[in-house]
Amino acid sequence: MLEWSQIREEVTKSAQQEPILASFLHATILNHDTLEAALSFHLSNILDSATLPAIAIREVIADAYQQQPELITTCMQDLTATYERDPVCQCYSTPLLYFKGFHALQSYRISHYLWEQQRRQLALFFQNRISTVLSVDIHPAAKIGSGLLIDHATGIVVGETAVIEDDVSMLHSVTLGGTGNQTGDRHPKVGKGVLIGAGAKILGNLTIGAGAKIAAGSVVLHPVAPHTTVAGVPAQPIGQPKQEQPALWMDQSI
Amino acid sequence: MLEWSQIREEVTKSAQQEPILASFLHATILNHDTLEAALSFHLSNILDSATLPAIAIREVIADAYQQQPELITTCMQDLTATYERDPVCQCYSTPLLYFKGFHALQSYRISHYLWEQQRRQLALFFQNRISTVLSVDIHPAAKIGSGLLIDHATGIVVGETAVIEDDVSMLHSVTLGGTGNQTGDRHPKVGKGVLIGAGAKILGNLTIGAGAKIAAGSVVLHPVAPHTTVAGVPAQPIGQPKQEQPALWMDQSI
Amino acid sequence: MLEWSQIREEVTKSAQQEPILASFLHATILNHDTLEAALSFHLSNILDSATLPAIAIREVIADAYQQQPELITTCMQDLTATYERDPVCQCYSTPLLYFKGFHALQSYRISHYLWEQQRRQLALFFQNRISTVLSVDIHPAAKIGSGLLIDHATGIVVGETAVIEDDVSMLHSVTLGGTGNQTGDRHPKVGKGVLIGAGAKILGNLTIGAGAKIAAGSVVLHPVAPHTTVAGVPAQPIGQPKQEQPALWMDQSI
Amino acid sequence: MLEWSQIREEVTKSAQQEPILASFLHATILNHDTLEAALSFHLSNILDSATLPAIAIREVIADAYQQQPELITTCMQDLTATYERDPVCQCYSTPLLYFKGFHALQSYRISHYLWEQQRRQLALFFQNRISTVLSVDIHPAAKIGSGLLIDHATGIVVGETAVIEDDVSMLHSVTLGGTGNQTGDRHPKVGKGVLIGAGAKILGNLTIGAGAKIAAGSVVLHPVAPHTTVAGVPAQPIGQPKQEQPALWMDQSI
Amino acid sequence: MLEWSQIREEVTKSAQQEPILASFLHATILNHDTLEAALSFHLSNILDSATLPAIAIREVIADAYQQQPELITTCMQDLTATYERDPVCQCYSTPLLYFKGFHALQSYRISHYLWEQQRRQLALFFQNRISTVLSVDIHPAAKIGSGLLIDHATGIVVGETAVIEDDVSMLHSVTLGGTGNQTGDRHPKVGKGVLIGAGAKILGNLTIGAGAKIAAGSVVLHPVAPHTTVAGVPAQPIGQPKQEQPALWMDQSI
Amino acid sequence: MLEWSQIREEVTKSAQQEPILASFLHATILNHDTLEAALSFHLSNILDSATLPAIAIREVIADAYQQQPELITTCMQDLTATYERDPVCQCYSTPLLYFKGFHALQSYRISHYLWEQQRRQLALFFQNRISTVLSVDIHPAAKIGSGLLIDHATGIVVGETAVIEDDVSMLHSVTLGGTGNQTGDRHPKVGKGVLIGAGAKILGNLTIGAGAKIAAGSVVLHPVAPHTTVAGVPAQPIGQPKQEQPALWMDQSI
Repeated sequence: MLEWSQIREEVTKSAQQEPILASFLHATILNHDTLEAALSFHLSNILDSATLPAIAIREVIADAYQQQPELITTCMQDLTATYERDPVCQCYSTPLLYFKGFHALQSYRISHYLWEQQRRQLALFFQNRISTVLSVDIHPAAKIGSGLLIDHATGIVVGETAVIEDDVSMLHSVTLGGTGNQTGDRHPKVGKGVLIGAGAKILGNLTIGAGAKIAAGSVVLHPVAPHTTVAGVPAQPIGQPKQEQPALWMDQSI
Repeated sequence: MLEWSQIREEVTKSAQQEPILASFLHATILNHDTLEAALSFHLSNILDSATLPAIAIREVIADAYQQQPELITTCMQDLTATYERDPVCQCYSTPLLYFKGFHALQSYRISHYLWEQQRRQLALFFQNRISTVLSVDIHPAAKIGSGLLIDHATGIVVGETAVIEDDVSMLHSVTLGGTGNQTGDRHPKVGKGVLIGAGAKILGNLTIGAGAKIAAGSVVLHPVAPHTTVAGVPAQPIGQPKQEQPALWMDQSI
Repeated sequence: MLEWSQIREEVTKSAQQEPILASFLHATILNHDTLEAALSFHLSNILDSATLPAIAIREVIADAYQQQPELITTCMQDLTATYERDPVCQCYSTPLLYFKGFHALQSYRISHYLWEQQRRQLALFFQNRISTVLSVDIHPAAKIGSGLLIDHATGIVVGETAVIEDDVSMLHSVTLGGTGNQTGDRHPKVGKGVLIGAGAKILGNLTIGAGAKIAAGSVVLHPVAPHTTVAGVPAQPIGQPKQEQPALWMDQSI
Repeated sequence: MLEWSQIREEVTKSAQQEPILASFLHATILNHDTLEAALSFHLSNILDSATLPAIAIREVIADAYQQQPELITTCMQDLTATYERDPVCQCYSTPLLYFKGFHALQSYRISHYLWEQQRRQLALFFQNRISTVLSVDIHPAAKIGSGLLIDHATGIVVGETAVIEDDVSMLHSVTLGGTGNQTGDRHPKVGKGVLIGAGAKILGNLTIGAGAKIAAGSVVLHPVAPHTTVAGVPAQPIGQPKQEQPALWMDQSI
Repeated sequence: MLEWSQIREEVTKSAQQEPILASFLHATILNHDTLEAALSFHLSNILDSATLPAIAIREVIADAYQQQPELITTCMQDLTATYERDPVCQCYSTPLLYFKGFHALQSYRISHYLWEQQRRQLALFFQNRISTVLSVDIHPAAKIGSGLLIDHATGIVVGETAVIEDDVSMLHSVTLGGTGNQTGDRHPKVGKGVLIGAGAKILGNLTIGAGAKIAAGSVVLHPVAPHTTVAGVPAQPIGQPKQEQPALWMDQSI
Repeated sequence: MLEWSQIREEVTKSAQQEPILASFLHATILNHDTLEAALSFHLSNILDSATLPAIAIREVIADAYQQQPELITTCMQDLTATYERDPVCQCYSTPLLYFKGFHALQSYRISHYLWEQQRRQLALFFQNRISTVLSVDIHPAAKIGSGLLIDHATGIVVGETAVIEDDVSMLHSVTLGGTGNQTGDRHPKVGKGVLIGAGAKILGNLTIGAGAKIAAGSVVLHPVAPHTTVAGVPAQPIGQPKQEQPALWMDQSI
């Protein structure tokens, strides 16, 4: 299990090696006794705007973490997922400090909390900030499980009635989009362990079965059976992933 | 017809429910008697930079609205289009306040006005700000009709000689791109009522006939006849849209 | 050969025509005797953040240019490439001032220099800023030759072990991605003169031979022979480019 | 009578001579057709804060000038007074652009307008900003005539029930203070043409007769007859000013 | 005894009357359950700088309040002193929100806490920010009792070895200065209930006895006996204050 | 002679002890090989504004130091003067980092250089920034020798034709003011080694002889002979300073 002290040790070394970043690393990580304190500090600075400055955003986030501590448990699972699945990631502190997919995901989790609390205007404000600053547009009403990896992240779109189960990995430019101009349940449901390649678009109220693999660039307009690989525009089944949970292996070949 | 008072009523409620956003909502919407006053205020804040701060940008935008009042008529048609076609949008004020596609489109309209006024350096400056802040890159010389919906918006590219007729809808990551390294008319012409799905790329001086539907992820390298659906890489005709103007229905199925 | 005096002349005219931008143009271009002074000034302002403000970033960049002057030679080749290949670009100063692909590329070159100097934490910090501000995610360890054009740029992803030879052109939303969850050489090698169309995804440790052309929207999972055109999802060879170096001609047709 | 065109001509020359300030001078002066437009722009930038940004302050000031145009007439008289009485001031544009006493005075006039409109919270907010940014603390309820010169300005204090007639000059660090802990009329009344030297303190509900001269460093605890010079701690009458209105001559000798 | 709920009630009304300040008032006061939460928020925003942003300063202040809760008790006594002695002050919330003397005093109290904790570099940093932003220069090592009123505040100087007992009032531009170029105890000791008028300068290691009154503009170079009024340059005893504690009555007459 | 390495050693310790300031200390001091690099960095950040940001100011200051290296020699003498005469100052780095009198003085020296170069508009701009940010108003045309100590600094005013010889010390709120409304030589000339106490006002074209001492709160309207102490309002000779150069001893007693 990931320990906060481990992140602090990593960052202590970095601060010594790169003094120009020392205050940033101290203020963001080393000054804090808990992940929630560090994360509320960092996300607030990322979402900072003239309209709602970092210091005020931080109170919203800190309050969410206090009211719903499982947000932090989930965050640690997301962090571990990124560390384990992304080979470029040699430290737990790297995604925490530098990966905009991780930042967007944790910010969405706050917006989702606000949406559930019926603070919908503020949730929409968060969605706008995440979309403008990080180019990731996740509707606050979407439901997303733990252990999600969003790699590179630019161009992600996840619609209002989308559902993502635990332990999913998706690359940049993935769309879980709706269809039609009517309200109602109209976005994909993505099962556990699914891997969605870069630029894949899944449109409509479709089920992507657990352990499926959606190849990069696919356009998925029909449900996908569990443990099935689909590819193409429009996407067709082309086989089965070698692994039970392709999300954990990040194998993009088909 | 959309009335300014209606937007004010929506926002009055929001300001009461979410006091942390009250000044933002007052400053942006409730303080103003007209849409143009509110919009010039809001867009200026979005495009704000150290180089050209919000308060100076606002004068450019306010002047454009005064010189060319049809910019505001067009804006209201864009706002209505978004409200009517995007099911996530329950209030007129939501896209006005929070949708970066709407913000990018209205900012482009100012850059286009500047370009037409031969203020090309300033138009390019606007293009850069829109592209950097909102990840939407529309050349100021492009010609775009009214009633356009740009949903989610990240990654939109519209080239210099592109033309978009009225009542078009496009999703994020759509490209209306050119081909070749020579100047001249080299970008698509998109007819009235066309729906362009997420990630579709239309390249070259091609006509997309009125009422056509370009499926998500398509790469279009040849002209598309009116009321035709195309899909695939490269895109092929696969049938006809069920509706006269697919843009109004947002049906992504093929 | 591009001369600094030529850029200054272009900008002198612009400053006279658009006084609201005059100080920006003076501070960014006209105040400086060399491209490196201008570029370190401009990039610093673009990457500016509360964490590491422009004035401090500038010292890092200026130091890099002093230690490694070939960074500026390369920059001039990138600038010339953009000028010659992008028909919308009528002045050398336009990409320098306004094209986020050019800004991202030159910023990556600094991050790469830092990475090579073993200042990896700072290199990751730069990568994060480039990705957040400009929506271009190039790993600092990637190796990129001179004369690269990145057009429109939103959504570009280039992985850690990717290599790009000289004189390549790529459009927005191109991915040079890895595959698998293990470290090691896992990203594409792109040959000289290759043209990569918008949204193309090349995944894995594949060689794209010199003079190849990757059509827009392609998903490339296998090596591509030199002077070959590939297209589709997954990409298949479909012919040969008309030109020796498709990157120089920007012909998107297939 | 001071003409706006005259100020524009002065500034046009400055902008040509000092290009690094050109955009500042254009944005602040040359872009505007009227003094009120220029002044609302400039004061807003001076009072700018995270809490109430320049662009929002400007609406408050512009509205005040529209509702009460005599604020601008008064401003021109203040500007003329500074130009005529301060020998360091060779241009009308110099105090407008650079003198913090002038900035503080015009900002106070807005706060006074707000106070009279019963917008007392906003008036107090302005008082705080003027005091924090410019080190000049004038209560919004104080009544101040036209043609006031406040030279250097740091440390000025003017209390709630103070009254200053037309054509007064005061140097920095002057206090028109109250006495006692009870509300009510408790501050000085200063007659027309009075000159108050640097650091002079006038305390209590005292009348300073027209044409009086208060020497630098005086502490005035008793009324002063018209056309009388007082000096010392506490101040005593020591003679008569040589001129009818010492404020116009700025002669500090006694 | 001052209750937090009372301040909240005052501010609730203000927020309703002046919506342009509503978010400021909510973020600063109404969002918080305690004075310490509100005060750490507000002071941080006042002292905010690029070097040490508000969100990081807030952690320093919040930590000080947690470690030393009597800082808040003292703050409430200062607030009550201002409310009771300054007739312009009709609400407890007015000095809390808008009086720079109050802001400077509470910020000094943090710097003093840091100094005592041997965090002297950070204490000096605070001193610099208070002096630059608020024009009040109090050395962090100075010892200041509770119930202090600093009215108007610009130009206050309090030296390293100065001591101020409880229930003192001082106006702007007061100096408690040292003499000589050697370290050691060299600043004034001011007794309980002393009133120090505007611009008074007290220089050297002198005792100002309890209940003394220092007239405005005095220069005090010798000790002052308890319950004595002094005035002049240099100051001489001229009588006795009418009240036991002149600080509470604010009577500036002599 | 003060060595740069000595300042770096002091600051290295501080950075280790107070990590929250480490990046500030690194960026401001430790990153630089010379005092001029550090000082241009620090002053630029202090004078930073939306109108002329730090990064652009820095070029003006760096250029001045390059063109006129004696500015740095003078700066070192000012720094040494502050270190030797101000007992609160235990390190050379303290005034460099934190004393606003030192910051104002070095910024004035740049404005004076600009004035001499006939860049008068920019010199006035600097004067305005120094006066607004630091509450010190020194006309750029004033002539000031080396080894000046300005302690505490708030409220300093030095007029256009004032001259200050080497090795002078002045406390806060000192005025070297003019008299009359006509241009011409109208400000004081202050001799070598003079000490001017807090709040003293010297008005008109008067000579203050070398080694004179002006007591705090004095108002000087007549010339002062060398090695003479004056005090009072108006100031009278009251004796002779004990030391040849009172500025070096800072003895405020009379």
